[in-house]
Amino acid sequence: MGTEQWLAGIDIGGTTVKLSFITEDGAILEKWEIPTNTDQGGVMVVQDISKSIQEKLSTLGKSIDQLGAAGVGAPGFLEMETGFVYEAINIGWKDFALKEELEKQLGIPVSVDNDANIAALGEMWQGAGDGARDVLFITLGTGVGGGVISNGQILHGANGMAGELGHITSIPEGGRPCNCGKTGCLETVSSATGIVQLALEFLPQHPESSLKAFEQEGTLSARAVIEQADAGDACATAVVEKSMYYLGFAIANLANTLNPSRIVIGGGVSKGGQTLLNPLNDTYSKFVLKRVKEAADIKIAELGNDAGIVGAAWIAKEAKRKA
Amino acid sequence: MGTEQWLAGIDIGGTTVKLSFITEDGAILEKWEIPTNTDQGGVMVVQDISKSIQEKLSTLGKSIDQLGAAGVGAPGFLEMETGFVYEAINIGWKDFALKEELEKQLGIPVSVDNDANIAALGEMWQGAGDGARDVLFITLGTGVGGGVISNGQILHGANGMAGELGHITSIPEGGRPCNCGKTGCLETVSSATGIVQLALEFLPQHPESSLKAFEQEGTLSARAVIEQADAGDACATAVVEKSMYYLGFAIANLANTLNPSRIVIGGGVSKGGQTLLNPLNDTYSKFVLKRVKEAADIKIAELGNDAGIVGAAWIAKEAKRKA
Repeated sequence: MGTEQWLAGIDIGGTTVKLSFITEDGAILEKWEIPTNTDQGGVMVVQDISKSIQEKLSTLGKSIDQLGAAGVGAPGFLEMETGFVYEAINIGWKDFALKEELEKQLGIPVSVDNDANIAALGEMWQGAGDGARDVLFITLGTGVGGGVISNGQILHGANGMAGELGHITSIPEGGRPCNCGKTGCLETVSSATGIVQLALEFLPQHPESSLKAFEQEGTLSARAVIEQADAGDACATAVVEKSMYYLGFAIANLANTLNPSRIVIGGGVSKGGQTLLNPLNDTYSKFVLKRVKEAADIKIAELGNDAGIVGAAWIAKEAKRKA
Repeated sequence: MGTEQWLAGIDIGGTTVKLSFITEDGAILEKWEIPTNTDQGGVMVVQDISKSIQEKLSTLGKSIDQLGAAGVGAPGFLEMETGFVYEAINIGWKDFALKEELEKQLGIPVSVDNDANIAALGEMWQGAGDGARDVLFITLGTGVGGGVISNGQILHGANGMAGELGHITSIPEGGRPCNCGKTGCLETVSSATGIVQLALEFLPQHPESSLKAFEQEGTLSARAVIEQADAGDACATAVVEKSMYYLGFAIANLANTLNPSRIVIGGGVSKGGQTLLNPLNDTYSKFVLKRVKEAADIKIAELGNDAGIVGAAWIAKEAKRKA
């Protein structure tokens, strides 16, 4: 133990739990993963995390006193103040007192937020957000998620639903059904799944497309669409443009409301980089107010899979500061 | 002077300045108006305000010590922290140090925010916001303005543009030009002006409409459209439905992002009450997430013209609390 305590940054997913020790300055000292044991409604997850952290500390010749606080990101719907998880389907938790249980096991203060929010905070702190205090963060993965940071604070809203950017309606009439029960949500056109769906819609008009082979092999993916667009395939290019049109339109309208100083696109799809950014910026520029655009350009996330652990450490640090 | 100091709430408009003394509990003790003297670039406005406040205090047998702080709302583009007005076209100010000048004249701390934001804060504190800490406030007047309150704080954004809800794009292609330089903004369809424009577009298909007479007399107004909709006119009803469809769609998308606990519609047009709320709620319900809707219904603003002075007193109170 020294004057320089570390923060534990923990990012719980349905398959693995990412763990880390991070300095108060945001430097990752150690990071590792353990499998998420979802047996019996995820009853072992907290104990596994605690045990793994104790072991890692021991390996490093340290005790739990080395850790000042822990931050945890969890998927699903939860209450941030109490760290109570109402439901995390991928893990099996239902009405689970995550913060309380982990504090009991570790003996240090624990802060909890949802996975999209900690990723946003991670990017704000050490990634493409570049320390900006007003960040709009959008993750393009299987779904579309988001985090809105204003004055350095993540917005949670009245009942924890703030940042549900994936369920902004992009197609008011005649859009595809979304998991949420509505139709035409941004998620149905700009997620990895949405991009594949758009490709399937566009393909009949483009029998010459290189995507045809992917479709026949059953390997059509967002990644394939973006790569083929990069390679100049007309159908793939049209799909990417359409998908980014909807995203750019939604972002411009949000920016007019929130006036962020940074807009960051993360998640697996964001690896498409400039292939996405070019059409995205065109639409964004068309629909955003001039002064709002002057304040914020769109960037691709920088931290990749580390965004969650870094953001988890951030909420631990913030809670410590306020304590 | 006593233990109970008052707050001065000041709402500067292009025609009149509304002034008030308000208790720390939000009760209006005195309110009055003076004309806004826009001669010579509004050079006399601050002195007029100061003089009027001193006179009113004197009439009440009080001195300036009775006032703990003043809050001011001003139209145009300004920096909240410094109270510096970059430009307020309706008053004539350009690069005007409003906060500094008024503090010099009054000798008490002055806080400044823009007029849409103080109206939102007023409604949050004493009006339809009902003390809620996450409020989405939309004003329907000549234009469409807004204020976003999150955790009890108004969002200003990176360069003071947050809450520009009127410039959310409602009609992506082929919409009417907006004052902002874009086309199809919410303001072009849901403001008083927008409602009149929609009526003019709809009228050729409805020669039997009672709005025809208003058009011919040159008295077609948003109020006339709403009144005729109330009276059962098919054209007026279609106009109101269309206008509220765009507003409800925009509000639902914002609510999915912000998860407010209260949504408040203010401004002159909001006097249309239930005639607007019925179609507005239909569209809002269609496009909002279920859990988000559970958190917030849409209400009509309650404070009317007093929202500004009450919100101005609120920012004075907040600044005092933080000092």
